[in-house]
Amino acid sequence: MTVSRTICLGFLAVILVGTLLFTSPLTIANATSDGATAQMIEASGDFLTSLRIALYTGTSAVCVTGLSLVDVGKYFNLFGQIILILLVQIGGLGYMTATTVILLVLRRRLNLRDKVAIQQSLDATGLSGLSNIVRSIIATTLFFEITGAIFLFGFFLDPTNLPADVSKLPTFIQNGDYTPLKALWLAVFHSVSAFNNAGFSLFADNLGSFTRSGPISLIVTLLFVFGGIGYQAIMEMFMWLKHHLSQQPGRFAFSLNFKVAMMTMLGLLSFGTLGFLLIESQNPATMLPLNGGERLVAAWFQSATTRTAGFNTIDIGNMTTTGLFFTLMMMFIGANPGSTGGGIKTTTFYVLLKTTLAVLKGEERVLSYQRRIPPGLIFKAIAVVVGSGLMVLLSTVLLTLTDAKLAQGNFVGVFFEVVSAFATVGLSQIGSSTFSPAGQFVIIWTMYVGRVGVLMLMGAILGDPKPSFVKYPEENMLVG
Amino acid sequence: MTVSRTICLGFLAVILVGTLLFTSPLTIANATSDGATAQMIEASGDFLTSLRIALYTGTSAVCVTGLSLVDVGKYFNLFGQIILILLVQIGGLGYMTATTVILLVLRRRLNLRDKVAIQQSLDATGLSGLSNIVRSIIATTLFFEITGAIFLFGFFLDPTNLPADVSKLPTFIQNGDYTPLKALWLAVFHSVSAFNNAGFSLFADNLGSFTRSGPISLIVTLLFVFGGIGYQAIMEMFMWLKHHLSQQPGRFAFSLNFKVAMMTMLGLLSFGTLGFLLIESQNPATMLPLNGGERLVAAWFQSATTRTAGFNTIDIGNMTTTGLFFTLMMMFIGANPGSTGGGIKTTTFYVLLKTTLAVLKGEERVLSYQRRIPPGLIFKAIAVVVGSGLMVLLSTVLLTLTDAKLAQGNFVGVFFEVVSAFATVGLSQIGSSTFSPAGQFVIIWTMYVGRVGVLMLMGAILGDPKPSFVKYPEENMLVG
Ligand SMILES: [K+]
Ligand SMILES: [K+]
Repeated sequence: MTVSRTICLGFLAVILVGTLLFTSPLTIANATSDGATAQMIEASGDFLTSLRIALYTGTSAVCVTGLSLVDVGKYFNLFGQIILILLVQIGGLGYMTATTVILLVLRRRLNLRDKVAIQQSLDATGLSGLSNIVRSIIATTLFFEITGAIFLFGFFLDPTNLPADVSKLPTFIQNGDYTPLKALWLAVFHSVSAFNNAGFSLFADNLGSFTRSGPISLIVTLLFVFGGIGYQAIMEMFMWLKHHLSQQPGRFAFSLNFKVAMMTMLGLLSFGTLGFLLIESQNPATMLPLNGGERLVAAWFQSATTRTAGFNTIDIGNMTTTGLFFTLMMMFIGANPGSTGGGIKTTTFYVLLKTTLAVLKGEERVLSYQRRIPPGLIFKAIAVVVGSGLMVLLSTVLLTLTDAKLAQGNFVGVFFEVVSAFATVGLSQIGSSTFSPAGQFVIIWTMYVGRVGVLMLMGAILGDPKPSFVKYPEENMLVG
Repeated sequence: MTVSRTICLGFLAVILVGTLLFTSPLTIANATSDGATAQMIEASGDFLTSLRIALYTGTSAVCVTGLSLVDVGKYFNLFGQIILILLVQIGGLGYMTATTVILLVLRRRLNLRDKVAIQQSLDATGLSGLSNIVRSIIATTLFFEITGAIFLFGFFLDPTNLPADVSKLPTFIQNGDYTPLKALWLAVFHSVSAFNNAGFSLFADNLGSFTRSGPISLIVTLLFVFGGIGYQAIMEMFMWLKHHLSQQPGRFAFSLNFKVAMMTMLGLLSFGTLGFLLIESQNPATMLPLNGGERLVAAWFQSATTRTAGFNTIDIGNMTTTGLFFTLMMMFIGANPGSTGGGIKTTTFYVLLKTTLAVLKGEERVLSYQRRIPPGLIFKAIAVVVGSGLMVLLSTVLLTLTDAKLAQGNFVGVFFEVVSAFATVGLSQIGSSTFSPAGQFVIIWTMYVGRVGVLMLMGAILGDPKPSFVKYPEENMLVG
């Protein structure tokens, strides 16, 4: 079986196991004081409804999307929540490992120079084989998740640490009648969900109660930003640190991939923060009630979450149209390659932007940090964007058919949901349960294709390509 | 002065002349029985309003967009209408000539083989110099416009030729109290407007009265389809005809450009017709009342008009959301290069799609009709799409700010207007006059940039590029 087929079927298998578990009464809560959730729990007695909720949640968890038809903190009991976060862990770790391994080790048709370069980079990190890489990725993940959980535990343990909007918190937190074990569970769940860029939260309004809480906003964003940086980039940062601390001679050379991915990500994070500050500061439903510092924190959080984390502190449902459309565009770009995040990836965006600049400069080659970007890579970037774009457009068209009234009344909300699903973000303006069952299946399919990637999926369906090497003459034509 | 600067400033100059003429009372009608138009005519007494309407109409005419704040058949008197159609002619012909000449003759850094090939193609058409090409383009344009006008004149001359919806026609046509000279003017105006893909009509509902009229739909669509095919492709068809009629020996070889442009255009026309048949056939406000044949004609017309002609027979304001979004995507692709039409161009779309397919096949080169597409051309296609995409997104964001309520209530309509303006289409769902004055200026700017093209405009601003030839090593990175 080809690598792409293994990955696509692997994801499918985990999704099916998750779906099966989520249809079981063992995972669903018995009752809740929340009217809507109680209704859902009752409706889940109907097999088809139960199956739809289970498939939706299972896909969303394994694809680390975070979209949900139900309030997962109330609909699922503790066992269900544990299953959910395990699916997130398997999905996030699996994707990060698979993409890193494919890109670093299994990449086909490597020329000799590439092979030597990769060998050197593996030697440099002290990793000489596949299993070592996998072990290192798991260790890195655990390091961030445990660190994050410890910090979050500190805050969740004592409700007086929590921010001004205490009135919005769940009653059990407000009353302080919850055990340290419960606080630990909240910390672990949100830490794993954050590092895997899953965006699932046990709170009904996601992190809406923590809009004014700088520390919690910071811990969570740091977790998902590091999760979205990608394993290879984290490793290079680690090597750089080691190089400097051990005072080794010579300059440490970052790879082109590192420089491009980091600069693009930092650029997008800053641009996004500035953008949301400008767009949402005067919106009474989101950032107007906040003071200056809180606004900066909220804008940073919103900017960072569009790198496909999917958590939110401000109310997405009440953002301005400008803010929604801006979020939508940022979500499509997404995170770094080889990370837990989704989207077309920062490097893809960079390559196409850099190509555009090169054409404007009248150059026939594309340079970046004094390196030439190979045409094959640029072609791949085109394929990623064209494939992703067509998939997003197709899903949007399908939703205008399955949910015609919704789309007519709130087109931007529908478009937003599609991009959010495709880029594995999980933010929703409309509320995912508002869609018709048929529309929900369109979104389930979009989440899956968005996670494995259009190219990977086509590769899995079409099988290994057999490129032909017949020579053909070049001929020009007119474009643009 | 560089070529791109000359073109950008040339368009600007003609727009300014048009604006000046349209602010003059000499071009504006004295009165009308139509309430809304009468109000506009009165409002045009205010200098700023008059200037805004004039600039909007002038830009729309020179850029052959067709968007309008007023009903041009009533707001302008005959002199104003003559100015309007002259601006359309200058704009359409100017653009077709400029792009053809740039692409065929003035293209810089041609290698010897290219030069020889172009010389051969020029020799083949019997055109050996620049002025001959210009003369031939003018002759071609006049041939189509005069032929079209003669046919249309035949239909407009006798109202009994006109279709079932006579009740929707202007009163003077219904009563038959109009002179052959008036019929001739209608024929000439619509023929010129159609061949130049301008989409301006002297009827209040554009061609909405002719939905059921096969012949008029056919004449108009043939005119704008030929206008959108591009001069070079028309010439190759002409040469092919000549080759066959004169029974010359050997096979006639079409250029790659011809094959790609024609196949993509025919593919889009068929796909669009099928799409609109499926999407709009059950919409009571558009195609449901029509019979089978009429539906086919209406779907064909709607498909053809998205190649940036901008005429409409069905009511765009009442299309389904699916139909609007489908129209929007088709408009963005647009017409053939070197034609009067706009959009990113069929060949650009083809090149990116073909590159995506090549990547899926695992090939490192892009083939088309047994020719290799040069990487430089693929890079240019990226630049066109990225530049155009960013411009469309920017204009949309600006309109969500200038017209926040409109965008919140009808985002797809606003998005549609931007794409229509950028691709020089001229279809409108919202009605252009619904936008705030600030929004109207955003659209004016979008029409201009869309016509001259983002690359051309940047070239004009930045001046001639001076590419560097320092050698840099290649380095790979991760995308997608
Ligand atoms: K997510
Ligand atoms: K037009």
